[in-house]
Amino acid sequence: MKDRVLSGMRPTGKLHLGNLYGALDNWIKLQDKDYERFYFVADWHALTTGFNESKDIPDNTIEMVADWLSFGLDPDKDTIFVQSLVKEHAELFLLLSMVTPVGWLERVPSYKDQIAQLGKSKTSNYGFLGYPVLMAADIIIYKAAHIPVGIDQVAHLEFTRELVRHFNASVNKDVFVEPKPLLTEVPKILGLDGRKMSKSYDNAIYLSDTEEETNKKLRTMFTDPRRKRKTDPGVAEECGIFMLHKIFTEKEKQQEIKSACANAEIGCVECKKLLSENLNSTLAPIRQKRAELLKSKDTIKDILTDGSLKAQEAAKNTLNEVKDAIFSTKRIG
Amino acid sequence: MKDRVLSGMRPTGKLHLGNLYGALDNWIKLQDKDYERFYFVADWHALTTGFNESKDIPDNTIEMVADWLSFGLDPDKDTIFVQSLVKEHAELFLLLSMVTPVGWLERVPSYKDQIAQLGKSKTSNYGFLGYPVLMAADIIIYKAAHIPVGIDQVAHLEFTRELVRHFNASVNKDVFVEPKPLLTEVPKILGLDGRKMSKSYDNAIYLSDTEEETNKKLRTMFTDPRRKRKTDPGVAEECGIFMLHKIFTEKEKQQEIKSACANAEIGCVECKKLLSENLNSTLAPIRQKRAELLKSKDTIKDILTDGSLKAQEAAKNTLNEVKDAIFSTKRIG
Repeated sequence: MKDRVLSGMRPTGKLHLGNLYGALDNWIKLQDKDYERFYFVADWHALTTGFNESKDIPDNTIEMVADWLSFGLDPDKDTIFVQSLVKEHAELFLLLSMVTPVGWLERVPSYKDQIAQLGKSKTSNYGFLGYPVLMAADIIIYKAAHIPVGIDQVAHLEFTRELVRHFNASVNKDVFVEPKPLLTEVPKILGLDGRKMSKSYDNAIYLSDTEEETNKKLRTMFTDPRRKRKTDPGVAEECGIFMLHKIFTEKEKQQEIKSACANAEIGCVECKKLLSENLNSTLAPIRQKRAELLKSKDTIKDILTDGSLKAQEAAKNTLNEVKDAIFSTKRIG
Repeated sequence: MKDRVLSGMRPTGKLHLGNLYGALDNWIKLQDKDYERFYFVADWHALTTGFNESKDIPDNTIEMVADWLSFGLDPDKDTIFVQSLVKEHAELFLLLSMVTPVGWLERVPSYKDQIAQLGKSKTSNYGFLGYPVLMAADIIIYKAAHIPVGIDQVAHLEFTRELVRHFNASVNKDVFVEPKPLLTEVPKILGLDGRKMSKSYDNAIYLSDTEEETNKKLRTMFTDPRRKRKTDPGVAEECGIFMLHKIFTEKEKQQEIKSACANAEIGCVECKKLLSENLNSTLAPIRQKRAELLKSKDTIKDILTDGSLKAQEAAKNTLNEVKDAIFSTKRIG
C-alpha cells in the first residue's frame, strides 16, 4: 500500500493568495509524488469556534472547493471529501475520547491562545476543548503517514502522535502509526496593509477577484515604507509586492526588479503594474476554470459526495480494526 | 406518531434480581401502554469508566440481552438495539458537543461523585467528562418523550432537558422536545449481606443461578438482626427475605408470614425455604427460556442487528433535521 498524505481546511469560503500559495500549492506539488492523497473540508472543525455562522458552511464549502479544483486538485488523482460526510470520524472521535486525559487537552498550547484570541463565548464549549481529539481522528482514521505542514505547525502534530502511542498501549496493539510532518515551504505572503494576508484582516486578494479588482487592490498595497519618494532606494525582500513577484514573475525579471528597487530606478507604481500583469495572466486560466465550475455547483457536490464515499471505505477498514482491538473480534455487528 | 419511551443499560453481564425487578420489570409493564419502546445496550457508556474491561463487552452484552429476552422483552414489540451499532449517536454527540459549555459538565452532580467513587484513573478522560452529552444524544436522537426512571434519578434528566433548550435556541428552531421522566416504582431489593443488591458487592442472586445455587445463597442471607433466636419476634418489613417474598409470594401468604414473624411463630429457615420454592418456581420458565436462547447466540445477535437497523432509521430522520437546522437545507450530502 502506498503511504498516505492527508490535509484539510476549514470551509471559510473563497481562498486568497496566502491560502493558495501557502498551502494549496503544496497539495498540488504532491501529485508528482508516490502517495495516496486525501484532502478534506473540515466542516465539523468550523463548528468548534463558529457555531453561530454554521449556516454559511454549505456555500463556503462550494466556494472553497471551486478554488481547490480550479487551482489543480484533481478528483481522479486526489480523494477530495467532506469531514461530516464520513461519520466514522465522529465514531473514532468518541472512541478516542475514552482514552484522552482531559489534562492533555487543557495543556495544548493553542487551547489557551485561542481562548485569549477568540474570547470565552466562542471557546467555552466541550467540542472546542476536544478539537485536538477530532483532529487526531481525522488523521489516523486514514492511517496517514505524512501530514504537510509548515515548520511552525510541527508542534500541532505532537498531540496526535502522543495519543496514538497512548491508544496503542491501551489496547495493547499497534493499531495506528504515528503520523510524521511533511515539511513544506510556506512562502511569506503579506496583505494589502503589510500584515499577514488574512481574511479576517480584510487585506487579501482572492482568486475570485476580477482583474480590475486585483489591479485596484494592488495599487493601494503597502510597499517598503523607506520609499517615500521614487528617488528613495528600497529593500525588495521586505516589500509585500516583491513577495508576490517571487511567485508570479520569472526569476530573471525578479533580479532586475530587486536591483532597480535598491537603486531607485523603478517606481512602486510601475513595479505594481508589472505584478498586476503577471499575476492576472497566471491566474486567468484558473479564474476561467473557477467560473466554469461554479456554473454547475452540482458537479462540485457530486465530486465531494463521490470522494466522501471513497474516503469512507478507507475509514471503515480502520474502524473495524479499532473495534476489534477495543471490543475483541467477538464484537457484535 | 406514538410517543416514544427509551431506556438503556450498560452491558455488565448477567442480571440479578435487583436489575430484573428494579428496572427490567418496568420495561415489561410498558408493553401494555401505547408507546413505541426503545431499549439499548449502552456499550459506549461502558467505555467511559471501564475501558480496561472493554474486551468483556461482547460476552456481557449477550448475557444481558439473554436476560432481557427471557424475562419478556419482545423484539416484535420492542426495539432492542446496541448503541455502538447506531453511529448516529456518535454524530449527534459530536454536534451537541459544539454547544455544550464545559462548565455545565463539570457541575453535573454525579461527575464529582463518580470521581470520588471510582478514582481519578478511571474518570480523568475526556469521554467521561462528556458522558451526559452522550446520554442526551441517546435520548433525543429518538425524540423520546418519556424516560422510565425511579424518583431518585429524575435529576439525571435535567441536563438533557437543559441541553435541549440550549440547542433549540442555538439553531433558533424547536428541533428537539424535552424528555419527561416516567416515574416507575422501584422495589427495594437487598443483597445477601443486607446491603443493596449489587454485582460489585458480590451479594446478588442471578437469573442465571441454578435452583441449587439460589437455595444455597438464600440459606446464607442476612435476615432481621433482632431475631437471634427463633423465639425473638422480627420485623418483616426490614428483612431482605421478606422484601423478596413481596415479589415472589402471593399477597395473602405475605400477610401470614408477616404476622408469624412478628409473633415468632415462623423461623427464618422455614421462611427462606418457602421463598426458595416460590422464587424458583417463578423463575423456572424464565431460566428455561434463557438456557434455550443461549444455545443459539447468533439468534440474539440477529435480534440486536435487526433492532439496531430499525433504531438507525429513526435516528437518521432526526439527524437530518438536526443537520438542516445547523447547516441549512443547502447542506451537501
